[in-house]
Amino acid sequence: MRRIRIAVAGLGVVGRRAVRLLKSNRQKFLGLGARVELAAVADREVTREARALGLGPSVFRTRDPQELLAREPDVVVELLGGLEAPRSLVLEALRKGRHVVTANKRLLAHCWEELQEARASSGGRLYFEASVAGGIPLLQSLESLSANRIEALYGILNGTTNYVLSRAEEGAPLPEALAEAQGLGLAEKDPSLDLSGQDTAQKLSVLASLVTGAWVRPEGIARQGITQIESEDLEFARARLGRTPRLLGVLSLDWGRARGLWPSPKAVRVEAHVFPTLVPLGHPLAGVRREYNAVFLKTSEAADLMFYGKGAGPGPAASAVVGDIFLLARDLLSGLPAQRREPGRAVLRPIDESLSCFYLRLLARDRPGVLARIASALARRGVSIASIHQSQAGGNGVPIILTTHPTSHGRFRRALSEILGLGSVARRHTVMRILA
Amino acid sequence: MRRIRIAVAGLGVVGRRAVRLLKSNRQKFLGLGARVELAAVADREVTREARALGLGPSVFRTRDPQELLAREPDVVVELLGGLEAPRSLVLEALRKGRHVVTANKRLLAHCWEELQEARASSGGRLYFEASVAGGIPLLQSLESLSANRIEALYGILNGTTNYVLSRAEEGAPLPEALAEAQGLGLAEKDPSLDLSGQDTAQKLSVLASLVTGAWVRPEGIARQGITQIESEDLEFARARLGRTPRLLGVLSLDWGRARGLWPSPKAVRVEAHVFPTLVPLGHPLAGVRREYNAVFLKTSEAADLMFYGKGAGPGPAASAVVGDIFLLARDLLSGLPAQRREPGRAVLRPIDESLSCFYLRLLARDRPGVLARIASALARRGVSIASIHQSQAGGNGVPIILTTHPTSHGRFRRALSEILGLGSVARRHTVMRILA
Repeated sequence: MRRIRIAVAGLGVVGRRAVRLLKSNRQKFLGLGARVELAAVADREVTREARALGLGPSVFRTRDPQELLAREPDVVVELLGGLEAPRSLVLEALRKGRHVVTANKRLLAHCWEELQEARASSGGRLYFEASVAGGIPLLQSLESLSANRIEALYGILNGTTNYVLSRAEEGAPLPEALAEAQGLGLAEKDPSLDLSGQDTAQKLSVLASLVTGAWVRPEGIARQGITQIESEDLEFARARLGRTPRLLGVLSLDWGRARGLWPSPKAVRVEAHVFPTLVPLGHPLAGVRREYNAVFLKTSEAADLMFYGKGAGPGPAASAVVGDIFLLARDLLSGLPAQRREPGRAVLRPIDESLSCFYLRLLARDRPGVLARIASALARRGVSIASIHQSQAGGNGVPIILTTHPTSHGRFRRALSEILGLGSVARRHTVMRILA
Repeated sequence: MRRIRIAVAGLGVVGRRAVRLLKSNRQKFLGLGARVELAAVADREVTREARALGLGPSVFRTRDPQELLAREPDVVVELLGGLEAPRSLVLEALRKGRHVVTANKRLLAHCWEELQEARASSGGRLYFEASVAGGIPLLQSLESLSANRIEALYGILNGTTNYVLSRAEEGAPLPEALAEAQGLGLAEKDPSLDLSGQDTAQKLSVLASLVTGAWVRPEGIARQGITQIESEDLEFARARLGRTPRLLGVLSLDWGRARGLWPSPKAVRVEAHVFPTLVPLGHPLAGVRREYNAVFLKTSEAADLMFYGKGAGPGPAASAVVGDIFLLARDLLSGLPAQRREPGRAVLRPIDESLSCFYLRLLARDRPGVLARIASALARRGVSIASIHQSQAGGNGVPIILTTHPTSHGRFRRALSEILGLGSVARRHTVMRILA
């Protein structure tokens, strides 16, 4: 029976739930041949939390996460939040050959290469199922797909924005939907990290790095949030386009001569971006509502796949953390060395080269000729219009909604900038991508 | 570098695709530390198929699958179809300590216990990802959920019936939708195994046996197919109930004192059945259309999860087979003995105890009092009516559609039998369950 000593850094709601799950699953670990022991915990309020958890005197307690390492645990579970404290804890743990389970997407997105190097240098293992789409066993599923090339990935990775969009779809005004999400604890008081797409971009960075084996930095991921979207966009999209918006993190992979070898000796061409995107009402991603997350994959052999579940919350996150500890225990018992994967190579395609159909809503002053000027701006940039709708003039002007045929992001961006420069068009506008 | 010698029994479309994928993924296996070699193949048309695949002279060929074992392969891939030939091949392989990958749900459902015994006696391993919901990496995902109790499972496990129902939902008459599925190769010429729910029951048996660790026999699974359903049921369900039918295989698990230990020393109470079920239009299962499959789980920690993908077809099935060989290679390299799981215990609840809301469409002769007689039959059995709708009389009589509050299957069944015995009601009727 192998003893596996666990240190937990951070006893917030997820940490406490994970400690309880470790205990209630003791028997399952024993069935595997591992005696899992909680050896040490760190938290700013460690005395109070340890008492609430009923931890025995054998469990070392500290306020300083770094002190956990002196107890020589086999596994460090990092649930601190933030960036600097987790970074130094995880790096030092890995360099000392300890194994790490973390739920910290920000750490992974911003320090991927450093973490992989620390891991590779010492044989430490790093598990992070809880960092992206919390409760969904996604990273493990990717292992079962090893005979496939992942050709594209569409992720609904942020529960807050999805809650807001899907409540708005049901008719709630957008500001009310946001207030509701805040009331339910799904959105922060300052929800800008979510609404701006930054949170989604961090998670997409983790997924892109995992799929390609090469660090795809979050700053390189073009993004646009959902703050421009208004109820009339949802209504129009549903009634006229048979679509509904979702904030999608998208990866598109061109394996070229790499042929899906992973990691690839040849560079993989990657497109990675976060945009509000109109998906057909019949598409499985349209069925992902409220705070749920989903990852939709296009694969070379298994065709389309989707994994759906809760992205956040104490239960789903702790389920992923303890699931990781379970896999880690299995791997430690196997005696196999940690996989030494050579880093892959990825080249990020400039966003301007990315092809899509676009949705654009503008507000024009009711003047003859404005539609013609908009149309010619698009034509000059080579953007082909698929449909154009001009409503009755309202108090603020005439809403014009147009959709394009597939065009490059760059062409569309330049045309839009010219259109917004027309004196007869308001600056405020809405752009979304349209999923084919 | 460990050599892993593979024998493939059955070179149909899935077998040929799997052989090609093994070859094109050679590099990935090498990255793992395994040199995977195709050692032997068996097929009734082995000469023709081996030539088509360009197999070298080092690959042993035979018409008789049993001869494969004489070549002492590490892994036997069983893709024969049928029951008796696969059964004797797989049992003998396992008893000789060989490892087996199979896509054969019928074999697993009908011979679960025998297979597990053969496996346990010799340390052979048995992988069967391709047998249920082909392309979806489901069985592997369940491993990541080890900190959870699976409380319920709702599966769309048969592509043919789902194709028919979702095309009918789009307005196609049901017989046309079936002909379409046959034209696309999604349905057999004799589609009765699919339409009757038998295929779904076999797959549900495999899932139930896996989740509980105890054999849940397919014959014990109550089932009803989709042949009663007509276009007017779909129309009514959509317009009046906001729902649409799916043929669901359902497991409901009461872990009781077993508390999710797996395998459980205490018996788990299992409800397992296959019924056409009306799901809310906003439910993720309603977004599963055409030949796609999905498995929706209710778990103790990770809340609701859904896995979506193609259940059949050469690509998805071969992807699952080669994914299994990949996991098998990893496990063989690990040197860990095959997990010795004690068999679990499961008690199947009689279907009559199962609770549900029901949908019932009847055709009554237009006679005063028939509605009263139907209502009193239901009342006598303690079935509470939620709504009742009587349309204008047509050529054949008056269609009556009613829905019930939650009631036991037994009560509803007895009331229905009394209603169908009324002289004023036609025998032909439609029953569906309603998902809460």
